[in-house]
Amino acid sequence: MSQRAVIIGAVAAGSKAACRYKRLCQNAEVILIDQDKYISYGGCGIPYYVSGDVSDEKELRSTSFHMVRDEKFFRHDKGVEAMTGTRAFAIDREKKTVRIEKPDGTQADLSYDRLMLATGSRAKKLNIPGMELENVFSVANLEQAMAIKEQITTGRIENAVVIGAGFIGLEMAEALSDMWEIETSVVEYCDQIMPGFVSKNLSQMGQHKMEQNGVTFYLGESVEEIQGQDGRVSAVKTEKRTLEAQLVISAVGIEPNSDLARDAGLEAAPGGFIVVNDRMQTSDPDIYAGGDCVQVANLVTGKPCYYPLGSIANRQGRVVGTNMAGGDARFKGAVGSFAVKLFDGALAGAGLTPETAAREGYDAVGIQVGQFDRAHFYPEKEIIFLELVVDTKTRRVLGIQGFGGEASGMYARVNAIAPLLQYHPSVADISNLELAYSPPFASAMDIVNAVANAAENHLDGYYAPAHMEDFVQCWNNRDCGKYFFLDCRAEADAKSFEEKYPDIWKSIPHEQLHARINEVPRDKTLVLVCNTGVRSYEAQVNLAAHGITDAVSVGTGIAGMKECGMRF
Amino acid sequence: MSQRAVIIGAVAAGSKAACRYKRLCQNAEVILIDQDKYISYGGCGIPYYVSGDVSDEKELRSTSFHMVRDEKFFRHDKGVEAMTGTRAFAIDREKKTVRIEKPDGTQADLSYDRLMLATGSRAKKLNIPGMELENVFSVANLEQAMAIKEQITTGRIENAVVIGAGFIGLEMAEALSDMWEIETSVVEYCDQIMPGFVSKNLSQMGQHKMEQNGVTFYLGESVEEIQGQDGRVSAVKTEKRTLEAQLVISAVGIEPNSDLARDAGLEAAPGGFIVVNDRMQTSDPDIYAGGDCVQVANLVTGKPCYYPLGSIANRQGRVVGTNMAGGDARFKGAVGSFAVKLFDGALAGAGLTPETAAREGYDAVGIQVGQFDRAHFYPEKEIIFLELVVDTKTRRVLGIQGFGGEASGMYARVNAIAPLLQYHPSVADISNLELAYSPPFASAMDIVNAVANAAENHLDGYYAPAHMEDFVQCWNNRDCGKYFFLDCRAEADAKSFEEKYPDIWKSIPHEQLHARINEVPRDKTLVLVCNTGVRSYEAQVNLAAHGITDAVSVGTGIAGMKECGMRF
Repeated sequence: MSQRAVIIGAVAAGSKAACRYKRLCQNAEVILIDQDKYISYGGCGIPYYVSGDVSDEKELRSTSFHMVRDEKFFRHDKGVEAMTGTRAFAIDREKKTVRIEKPDGTQADLSYDRLMLATGSRAKKLNIPGMELENVFSVANLEQAMAIKEQITTGRIENAVVIGAGFIGLEMAEALSDMWEIETSVVEYCDQIMPGFVSKNLSQMGQHKMEQNGVTFYLGESVEEIQGQDGRVSAVKTEKRTLEAQLVISAVGIEPNSDLARDAGLEAAPGGFIVVNDRMQTSDPDIYAGGDCVQVANLVTGKPCYYPLGSIANRQGRVVGTNMAGGDARFKGAVGSFAVKLFDGALAGAGLTPETAAREGYDAVGIQVGQFDRAHFYPEKEIIFLELVVDTKTRRVLGIQGFGGEASGMYARVNAIAPLLQYHPSVADISNLELAYSPPFASAMDIVNAVANAAENHLDGYYAPAHMEDFVQCWNNRDCGKYFFLDCRAEADAKSFEEKYPDIWKSIPHEQLHARINEVPRDKTLVLVCNTGVRSYEAQVNLAAHGITDAVSVGTGIAGMKECGMRF
Repeated sequence: MSQRAVIIGAVAAGSKAACRYKRLCQNAEVILIDQDKYISYGGCGIPYYVSGDVSDEKELRSTSFHMVRDEKFFRHDKGVEAMTGTRAFAIDREKKTVRIEKPDGTQADLSYDRLMLATGSRAKKLNIPGMELENVFSVANLEQAMAIKEQITTGRIENAVVIGAGFIGLEMAEALSDMWEIETSVVEYCDQIMPGFVSKNLSQMGQHKMEQNGVTFYLGESVEEIQGQDGRVSAVKTEKRTLEAQLVISAVGIEPNSDLARDAGLEAAPGGFIVVNDRMQTSDPDIYAGGDCVQVANLVTGKPCYYPLGSIANRQGRVVGTNMAGGDARFKGAVGSFAVKLFDGALAGAGLTPETAAREGYDAVGIQVGQFDRAHFYPEKEIIFLELVVDTKTRRVLGIQGFGGEASGMYARVNAIAPLLQYHPSVADISNLELAYSPPFASAMDIVNAVANAAENHLDGYYAPAHMEDFVQCWNNRDCGKYFFLDCRAEADAKSFEEKYPDIWKSIPHEQLHARINEVPRDKTLVLVCNTGVRSYEAQVNLAAHGITDAVSVGTGIAGMKECGMRF
C-alpha cells in the first residue's frame, strides 16, 4: 500500500523534504501545499531581485539548469503533487487528515500517513499607526518583493526608510540605494546595526561602509508613526525626527507561522516556535516540522533557539525527507553562521557575540585583531578584522565575527571556526588551527590564528586590549590629563598626530622603545596604538618589563579606526 | 639568572619561536643562527617573487609594516640576536653547547639553556647526470630564487623545464610562463599533477587550466639526463623525448636538514625527520625542533607524517616559544590542508585522497560533485568541483579536495571541513554542516553539503557514481555495444550529441523519463549524464523504480568534462 505524505509549505524546507522523500520512496504519494502562488523560491535572493542583480523573479524560482519550479515541474520532474493557492487550516491528528481550502474556495480533507509543517514565518508587524498605508512593505515572501520592485521601477520613488538594521534591512537598504539611487535611511531601535550578530565595533565598520555608499542611519531611535497622504506613505516619524519616505520597508524580525500547529495541540515554545526533536518530529511523531517555524538547539549554549535561514531550512528539509522514508537522520542544532554583503564589504559570524555571551551568563571577552586577508607581500590584499569571543573562565571559544571586503574571504574564516563550535574548542585549538594556506588565499599565520594568539596573550596576562570604543572614550577625554597616547608606528606615520596633539600624543617607533623608555610617562594610562595592533602589543610587553603596566593596546589599531570612519 | 636560548634556523619556525620566547621572557638572551644571508622570509612567496608579482625580494623579508627583517630588526625590534652566515655544526648535549662557524671562518662554542632546531629542509636532488650544470635550479631558499630571477630578467630564457608537478613545481611553471612568457614544460614521473594531493580527476582540471595558459605537461615520464653546452643546461632528456631548456627547475620534493640532530644522537624517523612530542621536544627535553625538519602526527590516520609548509612551521614555532618559556602549548598534528593557485584556478584540499586512503588500508571512495560556488541565481558565479573521501565501512570522512576558480572560495570549502577531520566526522555531519550563507558567498545547500549528500546517497545504495575516468573508459569503448549514454539535460543541450552519436547517445530530459521509460534500453549499461550530476542522479533513482539498475551517473557531468578539457 502506497504511503501518502502531506507537506504544508513549499518554500525551502517543505520543497526539500517533499523531493527527498519522493526520491527515497518512489511509490509514495507526496502532496505539497502552499497558500501562495509562488513556491520553492530562494527567499534570501529577494534583495538581489529588488536591486536588479537578479532581473526576473523567475530566476529565484528556477533550478540551476533554468527550469522554473512550478506545479508542472514538481509533477513531472519530481513526482510531487504541488497545490498552490491552497490553504491548510486544520489538522485532525486522530483521523490523520488536513482540512484545506482550494483556490476556488472549495474545501476538502486530505488524509496523510506522514505530515510535515513547513509553514515558515511572517514579518513581525510594528504596532504603530500607519502600517496599513500603501507602499509600506515587509519582505516575508516573493509577492511582497514583487510589489516593492514594481514600485521602485516606476522611477517615482526618491526616498525610502528601512525600519530595522538586521541583515534583511541592510540588504534591502543596499538594494534601494545602490541600484535605484533612492535616498535611503535606516532606523534602528538598538544603538548599532546587526544587533545580536556582531559587536558594536564591528557594526561600526559595516555601518561606515554603508554610509560611504550613501545610506543614512538613525540608531537608538524607535519609529512612532508612519504618516501618509491620500492613503500612501509620506513620512516616518521617530521620537527624534520625521523622515520623508515614499516607500517604507519594515524588517524588524519574524514570528513563526505556527497557528496550525498550536490549534492541533502540538507542543510549541514561547514565541510560538514549534518544538521538534533532533529527528525533526513534533510532539506527534507522525508530524514533522522544519524551517523558520521550528525551534532548534543552539550548539554553543545548548539552549533552544531559532534560526530563520534558508540554509538551515534546506538541511532540515532533507532530514525530514529521510526520516519520513524510514531513515534516521538527525539535525543536532545550529550555531547561527551568517554572512551579509554590504556593498563591497561583508560582515560574517557564528556563535555568540561578547554581548549575547554576557546575556547567557558567560564571563566573555571579545578579542579583535586586524590583519591582511592574504600574505602581506602578495600584491592584492586588504586588511580585515576578526573578533573571537572567549569564555575567560574556561578559555572556550564561544563565537567568531568579522568584517572585511566582499572578496576578502571573511566567510572563509567564519567557516573554519563555526563547525568546531559544537566541539567546545579552546583558544589554543584555534591558535593552531590549520587552514589551507597559499599566499594568494591566506597568511601563513592567518588572521584566524592571530586572533586566537591575541586571545591567549590576553588570558595569560600579557595583553590588555582596548576596543575602538574604549579608545574613543579615552580620546574624548584626552584633555582630562589621565591618558597619554603612545604611537608605535614608524615616525613618518605618527608624526602628524604628534604635531597636532603634542601634549598627549607621542611617536616612539617600537624598535626605539627600549632606548627611549625614559620618554614614556609613568603617571598616566598609556593608550598604545600602531596600524593593526601588532607593534602596540609588543610595546605593551616591553613596557611591562620596564615596570610600566598601566597601558592598553588598541587591538585593531589605526586601520580599525579608519574602517569605522573615525577622523582625527 | 638570565636564560639563554639558541635557535638554529631563522626562516619560519625558528624566527617565530625566537620572538615568541623573547616576548614571554623579556630577560632571556635569545640567539638566532642561520647559515644563509637572508632570514625570516616568506618562502611560500618565492614563486610570486620569481613571477614579478612581488617585485623585490625585500618584500618577502619584510613585516606587514614594511620593516625588513634583518639582523638590525631582530636586535632592536625583537631583542633577538640574529647571526647570519653562521653555521652550527655540532651540538654537545652534555655541556649544552653548540659549535658554530662565523662568517669570518672563526669557530666558537655557544652555550644554551634551551636549544631549538629549525634547520628546515633542502630540495631532493635527482640522481641523474647534468644536475651540476649552470641554470639548473631548485627552489629551497631565497638565494636560489634570486638566482632564477636574475636569469629570467635577462630576457634570454626562452624555454624552461620544470621537473616535478607538485605545488612548488606548478607555481614555478606558472611564474615562468605567465609573466615572462617562457615556453614552459613540466615533466612528472607520476601520471598526474599533484600526486598524493588530489585524485586524478581533479588533477586533470588543474592541468587543463595550466595547459590553457600555455604550460605543456609530460606525465608518467622520468627525466634521465640534463644535457648542457659550455657548462650551461641546453635540454632535458626523458625516456621519451628531449626538451630544449635554457633553464631547469627541479622540484621533486624535499628532505630534512637533520644531520645536526642525527649527529647529536637525537631520535630521527625514517627519511631523517626529527621525532618530537606534541610539545615539540626532541628526545632531549632541552632541545626543541620545528618546521620542515620534524615529523608530526597525521590527525586523520594517527600515523607519523611530515608537512613542509610555512603555515605549519609558524604554528610550531609559536608552540616552541611558549614551551621554552615554561608554558604548555601543544601541537597535536596536522591534516595537510593546502591550496594552490594555478593561473585563475585553484586546487585545494585536506586529509586523504581516494588513492592515499586506499594505501592506508581504508575501503575508501571519492565522491565528486559540481555546483555553483554561490547561489545559482546570483549574477556572478561559477561551477566548482569538490570531492569527499569517505571510508565506506564506517562512513567516516577522510578527506576533501576540490578545484575551482581562484575567486570561487574553494579554500573556504576546504577550511570548513579540514578542522573537523581530527574529530572523525561522519558523512551525515558534513551533510548538515552549517556554513555562513548568503547568495553572494555560497549556496543555501552549499557544495560542501551537496557532496556529502551525494556520498550518503551512494553509501545508502541510491547513487552509483561514475568518475570522469570511468566515463572516459566507457566512451572510448562506446562501439563495443555494452554502453548506452542517456542524456538527462534539456533537449537543446543534448541534441547535438544525440545527432552525432545516434546509436549510443539518447536525449531524454529528466522530466520526461517516466513517460518515455520504454525508450530506455534494458540490455546495456546506462551511462547517465547531465550538466552537473543532479538530474542524472535523479534519473538513476527513477530508473531503479522501473527495475533498471545497470546504470551509473557521471558525478560532475558535462561541466566536469569541459573543465578537464574533454572534447566530443
